[in-house]
Amino acid sequence: MKQINIGIIGLGVVGAAVAEVLHKNASAIAAQSGLRLLVKKGCDLRKVKVSCPVTTDAYELINDREISIIVETMGGVNPAKKFILDAIAAGKHVVTSNKELIALHLDEILASAREHNVSVLYEASVGGGVPILGALRGNLAGNVLSEVYGIVNGTTNYILSTMSEEGKEFSEALKEAQAKGFAEANPKKDVEGYDAAYKTVILAAEAFGVRVKMDDVFREGIEKITIEDIRYAREIGYAIKLLAIAKENAGSVDVRVHPALVPLAHPLAGIRQNFNAIYVKGFPIGELMFYGPGAGGNPTASAVIADLIELGQTGRVFRREIKAATVKKIDDVKARYYLRLQVSDKVGVLASIAKVFAEKSVSIAAVIQKETAQNTTTLVIMLDESSEKNMQSALNSIKKLSVVHHLGNLIRIL
Amino acid sequence: MKQINIGIIGLGVVGAAVAEVLHKNASAIAAQSGLRLLVKKGCDLRKVKVSCPVTTDAYELINDREISIIVETMGGVNPAKKFILDAIAAGKHVVTSNKELIALHLDEILASAREHNVSVLYEASVGGGVPILGALRGNLAGNVLSEVYGIVNGTTNYILSTMSEEGKEFSEALKEAQAKGFAEANPKKDVEGYDAAYKTVILAAEAFGVRVKMDDVFREGIEKITIEDIRYAREIGYAIKLLAIAKENAGSVDVRVHPALVPLAHPLAGIRQNFNAIYVKGFPIGELMFYGPGAGGNPTASAVIADLIELGQTGRVFRREIKAATVKKIDDVKARYYLRLQVSDKVGVLASIAKVFAEKSVSIAAVIQKETAQNTTTLVIMLDESSEKNMQSALNSIKKLSVVHHLGNLIRIL
Repeated sequence: MKQINIGIIGLGVVGAAVAEVLHKNASAIAAQSGLRLLVKKGCDLRKVKVSCPVTTDAYELINDREISIIVETMGGVNPAKKFILDAIAAGKHVVTSNKELIALHLDEILASAREHNVSVLYEASVGGGVPILGALRGNLAGNVLSEVYGIVNGTTNYILSTMSEEGKEFSEALKEAQAKGFAEANPKKDVEGYDAAYKTVILAAEAFGVRVKMDDVFREGIEKITIEDIRYAREIGYAIKLLAIAKENAGSVDVRVHPALVPLAHPLAGIRQNFNAIYVKGFPIGELMFYGPGAGGNPTASAVIADLIELGQTGRVFRREIKAATVKKIDDVKARYYLRLQVSDKVGVLASIAKVFAEKSVSIAAVIQKETAQNTTTLVIMLDESSEKNMQSALNSIKKLSVVHHLGNLIRIL
Repeated sequence: MKQINIGIIGLGVVGAAVAEVLHKNASAIAAQSGLRLLVKKGCDLRKVKVSCPVTTDAYELINDREISIIVETMGGVNPAKKFILDAIAAGKHVVTSNKELIALHLDEILASAREHNVSVLYEASVGGGVPILGALRGNLAGNVLSEVYGIVNGTTNYILSTMSEEGKEFSEALKEAQAKGFAEANPKKDVEGYDAAYKTVILAAEAFGVRVKMDDVFREGIEKITIEDIRYAREIGYAIKLLAIAKENAGSVDVRVHPALVPLAHPLAGIRQNFNAIYVKGFPIGELMFYGPGAGGNPTASAVIADLIELGQTGRVFRREIKAATVKKIDDVKARYYLRLQVSDKVGVLASIAKVFAEKSVSIAAVIQKETAQNTTTLVIMLDESSEKNMQSALNSIKKLSVVHHLGNLIRIL
């Protein structure tokens, strides 16, 4: 049986799980893949308890001629990037779970891998255990894909699910997520959509072969979503989810991360807790969805090991060329919208709001009057498809109307 | 670029779609896989309009030295089996969508492929476009799987969805499915669970490496499910779905196809129309679900092409050994149950039923009294986990009670 010697840099939750699973599932993996995957050495600056020898010097792994694949599970850009580039230069394949590094430095890493005739795979960087990148690269390679979108951040989905199911406000749900270990002490990267934006960059590369930069990704977080928004949305048949969206049409790419109203009958609406789910559309497949655990040591280890097996079985993995993207400006993106606002409770208010929308060619689909208190009425307005530009222009005028007391959230509809 | 010459035997809905998609998506497939997949010739006895040369003689393809992969999309056991075995003997890889043939003759086909050093792949045989077999074989090969279950028959899911959403009875929903082309004129194979049983055999082979025979699969169809069952189930928080179930535990395999009550919060409960969805549990992945179109020419073509690309890129594909299975007897399978029955509307009836269950060690979890008419009351009884043997033994006694007018459906709970 073919033996593959592996070095793991970074023995935190994911790296340690990879080492343990390779040990525990060794005979099953051998039977299922024809490979003996052996962790020859791990590397971590901390003292860790794993079933392989451990060093604090990454170069003991990178320079070890018996090691053919380096697993990088330390996270962060530095020094992970240097370790990966040096491992590639030393002729080793690399498997990484590092979404930030891949999203920011994909070109440089893939160019170096091409130059040195090795492969870099990163299934674990998107969707945790969900095998979405392997599907896009392999199982769906006969398709021309047009859309990839979904729930790729478990923290925000946990918070939104908790708000929806337990009627908690955002701040309270965030605290609960932190207490349960589903959110970090500093939740900015998750809550404000940066983590999902990294994953959007990677999904666009794998699905459409285009290189999108982080700054190209339109990004809105969930920090302003209120329990009222969630309740009103549900009343009219929608759930609110933070979506990562990548669409391709005639060479132009639309890449966004923002909360969205998802119809309750759509499979994404029912994704609860910290699970991830990614929807794919294309020809000839039609539509597919992949659902599973988006984080955690064990699920993520499954993804890392999938890459190890693919490399072990096939040697260098074929990768499509990734070209510079033409990114659609957010102003030009069209969507339907949900708008919540508070207005004076008197005759003619709706007419004046409707007039502004009409002037900007934004068409109202429905108006729902909610609570009224102290002469103030909450309105929920559903708007037909319009460009972001027209929508923002209309909002600018509307918020200046004296009858408008407060402009609440504007949320796009899937 | 590497060119792979392909022959397609059977140019019906699926075979013709494969030829057309390979033609239409050719440049995308080349960019995404590094392969030029060329249909050198197709074979069909009917006159068909496709973009490749067509013959009526399958051996023009099988004996063509330039063709390296034969696609079999004609269906049925004969003569498909002979064509496949002859193609293997001629040194060709085979890709097939033929679930019946694979379920019935997997050993013989794989043994012949091993002998001739070629591969036989059959992604399209389960779940249509859903890439479940590739996931089990590849992306999840680092896992020890314990359960694979789901909705693998679009016809029955369409019927059950229609009954649930439109309040139609089985016979009416079946007619609608037939009118829309989602059910065949003779619906026996779908409705009575044979199609799902074929797929269960294949899923058990791929997930656990065990050879289950068709007769090993416990099978119940949906033909007795009534609109009352669906309504009562929903009232207590369940949907009714036809499930294909394969579980492995300590070398023993549990393989079943039957209707089941699925909790509404479970992702499988929301699968509508003729979509398929397959749930996978194992270590380290935890749980995953794959959702998508379970049939149709285009989606199924996506699966066939995935196999073609894998074979084209890697040559012979590693396949785990498939061993004879120890199959758990249905008598020993444990489940929770839903039971509907009609009884006399008088004092003491429930006590006499409860007494029988107690004697057979079956514990009642809840009793819900439904409609009463003409001295007859409909009861829904939810039963805690018990063995099938004890359950059937209890039912045998209960149906003999004079107060029991009619024994309705017994449905297992997921």
